[in-house]
Amino acid sequence: MFIPFTLSVLCAFSSHAMALSEAEQTQIELLKNTALNSDLSYQIVESLTTEVGHRFMGSEGDKKAIKWATAKMKSLGFDKVWTEEVSGPKWSRGEVKARIVTPFPHDVVVIALGGSVGTEQTGITAPVEHFKTLADLKMAPKGSLKGKIAFVSYQMTRHIDGQDYGPAVGARVEGASIAAEKGAIAFIMRSVGTDNNRIAHTGMMRYKEGVKKIPAVALSNPDANLLVNQFSREKTVNFHLKMTSNNPKGEMVKSANVIGEITGSEFPNDIVAIGAHLDSRDVGTGAMDDGLGVAMVLASAHHIAQLPVRPKKTLRVILFAAEEVGLLGAKAYVDKHKTNMDNHIIGAEWDFGLGRIYKMTPGVGASSLNGIRALANILAPMGVSLAPTNDARAQSDMSLLSDAGMPSINFSPDGSTYFDYHHTENDTLDKIDPDALKQNTAVYTVFAYFATQSAIDFRK
Amino acid sequence: MFIPFTLSVLCAFSSHAMALSEAEQTQIELLKNTALNSDLSYQIVESLTTEVGHRFMGSEGDKKAIKWATAKMKSLGFDKVWTEEVSGPKWSRGEVKARIVTPFPHDVVVIALGGSVGTEQTGITAPVEHFKTLADLKMAPKGSLKGKIAFVSYQMTRHIDGQDYGPAVGARVEGASIAAEKGAIAFIMRSVGTDNNRIAHTGMMRYKEGVKKIPAVALSNPDANLLVNQFSREKTVNFHLKMTSNNPKGEMVKSANVIGEITGSEFPNDIVAIGAHLDSRDVGTGAMDDGLGVAMVLASAHHIAQLPVRPKKTLRVILFAAEEVGLLGAKAYVDKHKTNMDNHIIGAEWDFGLGRIYKMTPGVGASSLNGIRALANILAPMGVSLAPTNDARAQSDMSLLSDAGMPSINFSPDGSTYFDYHHTENDTLDKIDPDALKQNTAVYTVFAYFATQSAIDFRK
Ligand SMILES: [Zn+2]
Ligand SMILES: [Zn+2]
Ligand SMILES: [Zn+2]
Ligand SMILES: [Zn+2]
Repeated sequence: MFIPFTLSVLCAFSSHAMALSEAEQTQIELLKNTALNSDLSYQIVESLTTEVGHRFMGSEGDKKAIKWATAKMKSLGFDKVWTEEVSGPKWSRGEVKARIVTPFPHDVVVIALGGSVGTEQTGITAPVEHFKTLADLKMAPKGSLKGKIAFVSYQMTRHIDGQDYGPAVGARVEGASIAAEKGAIAFIMRSVGTDNNRIAHTGMMRYKEGVKKIPAVALSNPDANLLVNQFSREKTVNFHLKMTSNNPKGEMVKSANVIGEITGSEFPNDIVAIGAHLDSRDVGTGAMDDGLGVAMVLASAHHIAQLPVRPKKTLRVILFAAEEVGLLGAKAYVDKHKTNMDNHIIGAEWDFGLGRIYKMTPGVGASSLNGIRALANILAPMGVSLAPTNDARAQSDMSLLSDAGMPSINFSPDGSTYFDYHHTENDTLDKIDPDALKQNTAVYTVFAYFATQSAIDFRK
Repeated sequence: MFIPFTLSVLCAFSSHAMALSEAEQTQIELLKNTALNSDLSYQIVESLTTEVGHRFMGSEGDKKAIKWATAKMKSLGFDKVWTEEVSGPKWSRGEVKARIVTPFPHDVVVIALGGSVGTEQTGITAPVEHFKTLADLKMAPKGSLKGKIAFVSYQMTRHIDGQDYGPAVGARVEGASIAAEKGAIAFIMRSVGTDNNRIAHTGMMRYKEGVKKIPAVALSNPDANLLVNQFSREKTVNFHLKMTSNNPKGEMVKSANVIGEITGSEFPNDIVAIGAHLDSRDVGTGAMDDGLGVAMVLASAHHIAQLPVRPKKTLRVILFAAEEVGLLGAKAYVDKHKTNMDNHIIGAEWDFGLGRIYKMTPGVGASSLNGIRALANILAPMGVSLAPTNDARAQSDMSLLSDAGMPSINFSPDGSTYFDYHHTENDTLDKIDPDALKQNTAVYTVFAYFATQSAIDFRK
């Protein structure tokens, strides 16, 4: 859906008046200030990262996180809390060692891509074929990589909206199978990351059906530079890789979506959904990805639960399982709730960025755009502008709910530094900016109250 | 020596005219522009970090570095190149694993301090006693740490001149023995570093004579935070450490200072010394510490060697061995050259900072301060100010030459980010700012030409 609209048309309506009563407007301003002055969301992400740490699907941390989230929702005043089972394939990282063997030996920092197989026990030593992009790798003739290691050195560039993640991540997801089709025995790539730390970025990869599964790793940016610089001196660069990652065929592990509600006082079956993913990669403490989102939506719900009266519609907080292994929690959720998906009157997720929200983009029924404008007016003093399009899907997991028909809002934060830390050991609490977190929590709190209290039907 | 002088007194002299002829002034401006427009120093540090990498005293890298430096000096047009042997104790890093065991288990990132012994094969698991500073640790009663691990969490703060390194580094150097005297079985500390990366900082430590040698490691800043946060929840925090560092008693390794000269045309026995240390820690590629300095002094000498006529006095470039294990190369140099130390008419080292030089501080004979002012006038347009004191020792290794009577200049660069990377795996080529490097090379080139060509006797 792509429905451009102009502000001038919207401004012809007195949108505030249509959306909320004067008392409600007073209430929403009070709520906003409560959120802006509360460090609750910071306390929550501190608790999750200190008491649980990383929580990859099926791990001990994942089990602890489910207990942690359930207890946290109860202590924060949710009316209902429950879990819904999710299952997925097992993977274990194991250990990895890598080095440039010739012409100039260096130990290098690499990390196994999520889902990769390991090498044989003795490791692999082979010449490296260097490609600047995934497109270049795709053009390599069939058989030309026989016995070699394919290396893609594309470097992701920094943008406020993370727009270069898409172009960069292709190599991570499908590079190994494309290389294997041409005979490669391993796949190495520059990390999908904008930093210059000696810390490599992991993330999910996928093997193509019927293609040999070869080991796949990412090098840290400085190590990728080091490898590229060797090619400027010698044609033949040999590389050694040994890893014990394990991808046992067919073995499954279990996890769960953790769901909580502040039940609506007038229309309990109308659901406003806010969400984040509870799982994380198996490195760092998942502070930013997505502890930040978990903290923000839990705190927003708490601020609303503290009001003397429940809002009219139900606020549902969904903490998704297994986002990092392919949105498995979201798939399970959509599958389980497909018969009542049209009760989900609007939703928003947080799964990107570290900085302040500067933009909101709706994806709603055309006749509710005036309501969106009213919301935007309330958020404007916080530096949030309204995008001129109406085509948004929700972020990450909730994009599947958008695809299933749920109206959505996408709040865009400053993501300039997000890919410095994404999917690395460096995703830790210290990366969180407490002031930006307060502001962003206030935005989600305002949105949640507005959507649960106003009469607007965002589906229309 | 501390001889404050005022600019007004100096300005009464026409210092330029005293120091250099008009032709020499033209020459020095040409040289400055040559250096400012040359990427030679960048090429040198790229070569050292790519072709050699790290080069800890006695390692394969160290042997390669000595060959590399000798060959590089010859190819850069030095008149004489030689090595002088240095020997020192052997140490091997081994492997290390550490984790917080209770109350909330986390694997943590630590690094062995240089010179530390390892643990027993099974490792150590023990309760941690937390001290905010080394001073607090010193005040702990005797015996109070029996069977415990001592932890100092002092966090170094960021300054342009790195002034908090001194206060922070005490724990690294003597923390283990102070803890051991009180019964501790291991010593852990927050890294001496200003970054928030999950990469720990190493560096030399020393055991006190007659005190039990206990294992000593530094945690990365995020991991130190994680450990501190556990204490806010539970009194008893248990920690596990296993490391195979090895400090074999009495075993020695050999290295060498690498020395090259551009021989003076009139006063070949008058030596102007510029230097840096060739060795590095055994992590990263030693790009910043001290590849940067090596590159700068080699390039400066090359620019001068390219002139049609040799300057009047000799320019000696000293690449010191074994700085990282206690200035052993500098000690050997002073010992070997003590009879002709008064031939060293002035010297400067580079072993700090990543940014541009903003200040120069002399440590010279009072009657040569006019000459220093003339040099400062030439450097002023590059943003270099003259400090109002005359008490400088040269940096690092060359401070021992200063102590032995050599007049010195200390050029101060912006060191704000230096301790983000210092003694870590993150000390790699990408941290080097090519523009700052050009400018700083120009400063050293101008200094070297000025000191070798002018008639000033800095000893007086
Ligand atoms: Zn995420
Ligand atoms: Zn993620
Ligand atoms: Zn140094
Ligand atoms: Zn050093």
